[in-house]
Amino acid sequence: MPKTVEKGSDPLELVEVGPRDGLQNESALVPLAEKIAFVDRLSAAGHRRIEVSAFVSPKWVPQLADAAEVFAGITRRPGVRYSALVPNAKGLERAIACGVTEVAVFAAASEVFSRKNINQSIDESLVKYAEVTRLAHAAGVTVRGYLSTCFGCPFEGEVPVERVATLTRRLLDIGVYEVAVSDTIGIAHPGQVRSVLSVLRPLFTPDQLALHFHDTRGTALANVLTALDFGITTFDSSAGGLGGCPYAPGALGNAATEDLLYMFDGLGHDTGIHIDAVTDASLALEPSISHRLPSRYVNAVRSRRGSAQPDPV
Amino acid sequence: MPKTVEKGSDPLELVEVGPRDGLQNESALVPLAEKIAFVDRLSAAGHRRIEVSAFVSPKWVPQLADAAEVFAGITRRPGVRYSALVPNAKGLERAIACGVTEVAVFAAASEVFSRKNINQSIDESLVKYAEVTRLAHAAGVTVRGYLSTCFGCPFEGEVPVERVATLTRRLLDIGVYEVAVSDTIGIAHPGQVRSVLSVLRPLFTPDQLALHFHDTRGTALANVLTALDFGITTFDSSAGGLGGCPYAPGALGNAATEDLLYMFDGLGHDTGIHIDAVTDASLALEPSISHRLPSRYVNAVRSRRGSAQPDPV
Repeated sequence: MPKTVEKGSDPLELVEVGPRDGLQNESALVPLAEKIAFVDRLSAAGHRRIEVSAFVSPKWVPQLADAAEVFAGITRRPGVRYSALVPNAKGLERAIACGVTEVAVFAAASEVFSRKNINQSIDESLVKYAEVTRLAHAAGVTVRGYLSTCFGCPFEGEVPVERVATLTRRLLDIGVYEVAVSDTIGIAHPGQVRSVLSVLRPLFTPDQLALHFHDTRGTALANVLTALDFGITTFDSSAGGLGGCPYAPGALGNAATEDLLYMFDGLGHDTGIHIDAVTDASLALEPSISHRLPSRYVNAVRSRRGSAQPDPV
Repeated sequence: MPKTVEKGSDPLELVEVGPRDGLQNESALVPLAEKIAFVDRLSAAGHRRIEVSAFVSPKWVPQLADAAEVFAGITRRPGVRYSALVPNAKGLERAIACGVTEVAVFAAASEVFSRKNINQSIDESLVKYAEVTRLAHAAGVTVRGYLSTCFGCPFEGEVPVERVATLTRRLLDIGVYEVAVSDTIGIAHPGQVRSVLSVLRPLFTPDQLALHFHDTRGTALANVLTALDFGITTFDSSAGGLGGCPYAPGALGNAATEDLLYMFDGLGHDTGIHIDAVTDASLALEPSISHRLPSRYVNAVRSRRGSAQPDPV
C-alpha cells in the first residue's frame, strides 16, 4: 500500500515518535491534556507523521493507557498522518474504533528479545502481524512495521545483517508499507550503519525503509548523516529527545527531533518542520516529565534564553 | 616545525583538551591531586597529545592557577606530548620554567570576539603571537594555534570563511605547526563543515589543520564524520565531554572523547586510545565537578554498570 499523504518537494521525512516511543519510556505519568497539547503543537510545527500512542495493555504500558482519549482530544490537521502502535488484532480494533487510519506493528530481529519483549517467537509474531495487517487493510488502515534490535540485542549481542534483511522482506511481504529498521538500544555507529545499509539498500527502495536511532551513545546524528549517503529519506525522532531505553536504565532516549532538524536545516533540507516550534512543544511538555529533556539543541536554546548574550545565529 | 612525536599507522589523532579547555569552563575548583591523577589516567589510556593547563592570569581563570603544580605533579610518559595554553611571552616563560615543550596560542576569527576575549584586535594578537612563537622556537618549544569562532561568533554572527582561511595562513606563517579551526560556541553543523573545509582543504595539508568542535547543539560527531571525508585527521576532544561554553551558560561542552572514540572504533580506526580507560578517567574525576558529565557514551556505561542487564556489546 503506497504512502497516502503527499510530501513536499524535499524527500526528507521525519516520523515524530515522541508521544508514543518517547512517553512510553518516561516514568512520570503525563496528564491527558498535556499529551493532547503536545501532539497538537507538533502538528502545528509542521510534522506530517506523528505516532500518537499505542493500543497496548495498560498493565504493560500505564503511560499510554489513555490512547483513546488522546485520539479523541487532538485536533486533526489535514495532511497529517496520526498513527498508533498495536500489538494484535484487539489493539487494531480499539485503534479503528478511535478513527485511526495508520497503525504500526513491532517485530524483533533477535529471538531472545522477541520472547522477552512480546512473549512470542519471531515467527509467531509475524503470523500474528500478517493477520493484523490483513484486517487493517480490509478496514482501509495502513500498516507500518518496526524491526527492533537491528544493530544489536541486549541479550544476544550481534545480530546478523542477513537476518535483518530477511525479516524486513517478510514484513513487507505481509503488507507493511515501510519497515523502521531500529537501533533499540542505541548501539549503532556510522561504521555499522554503512555495513547494514550496504546490504539492505540494494534489496529495498528508499521508500520501503526508515531508520530509527536512539542517542544512547551520542551517535544518532552521525548515523543519520551516514544513512543519508545511502539514500535513506525517512527517520524517526522524538521531540526533545524524550524517552529512554528500557534495557539501559538512565540512558538517553530517541534521536532528538530538534537536533536532527538543526542538522537537516544546515544541510539545506526543507522538511517543512519548524525547529523553534518543535522546541517550544518540547519545553511546554518538560514540566510534566521527571527530568530535563536531553536534546542538546533544546538545552542550547534554554541556556541562550536565560543568557544576556546575543543570539549567535 | 614538524610534529615531533611519531604516530601509529592510523593517521587519526585526538588532542585531549579536557584538563585545560574542559576544566577551564567548570565552575567547581578541582583539587590539584585530582587534576594530576586525571592527566595521568588519560596518558595511561593511550592519549599521545594532552593539553594539561594554561599559564594565564589566575584572575582570568582561577581553575588553572595551579598550572605549574600540575606539570610538576604529572608522570610524563615517553611519546606523550603535554602542552599548555599561553597568552603571551610571560606565560611562555612560566611554561618553559615548568619544562613544557609545546604551547598553544589562541587567536580569533571575529574582531569583536578577539577584543572581548583577549582585549586585543586580531592584528595586535598576531603580532604578539609571532613574538611568542619566535621565543618558543628559540627555546625548542613547538607552538600550536587555536583560531576561535571559525563557524560563527556570539557577537558578530556569521564569520566569512575567507577570513578563516586568511588567518589560518597567517598563523602558519608565524610558525605554528597546526591550526585548530574551532567552533567556539558549538554552532557548526555538517553543512557548514562542508562549506568551510571545501575552502580550507585545497589551501592547506591535513597536517596543518585540526578541528575543534563543541557539542552544544549535538552535532559534534556528525561534524567530525564530515571532516573525515575531507581528509582531516586531527580532532580536539574532552574526556567525558567536560567543559561548557562561556557564551552559552548551561550549554554543553567540548566534543566528548569517549563519544568520538566509540565512533572511531566503529569505523575501524586504531587510535591507540582505550575507550574504557578514558571512561574510567572521566568517572574518577566526576565527583570533583558540580554536575554529571555530559558524554552520552559515559552515561550509557554508567547506566549499564548500574543495571542487571547483560552488556549488549
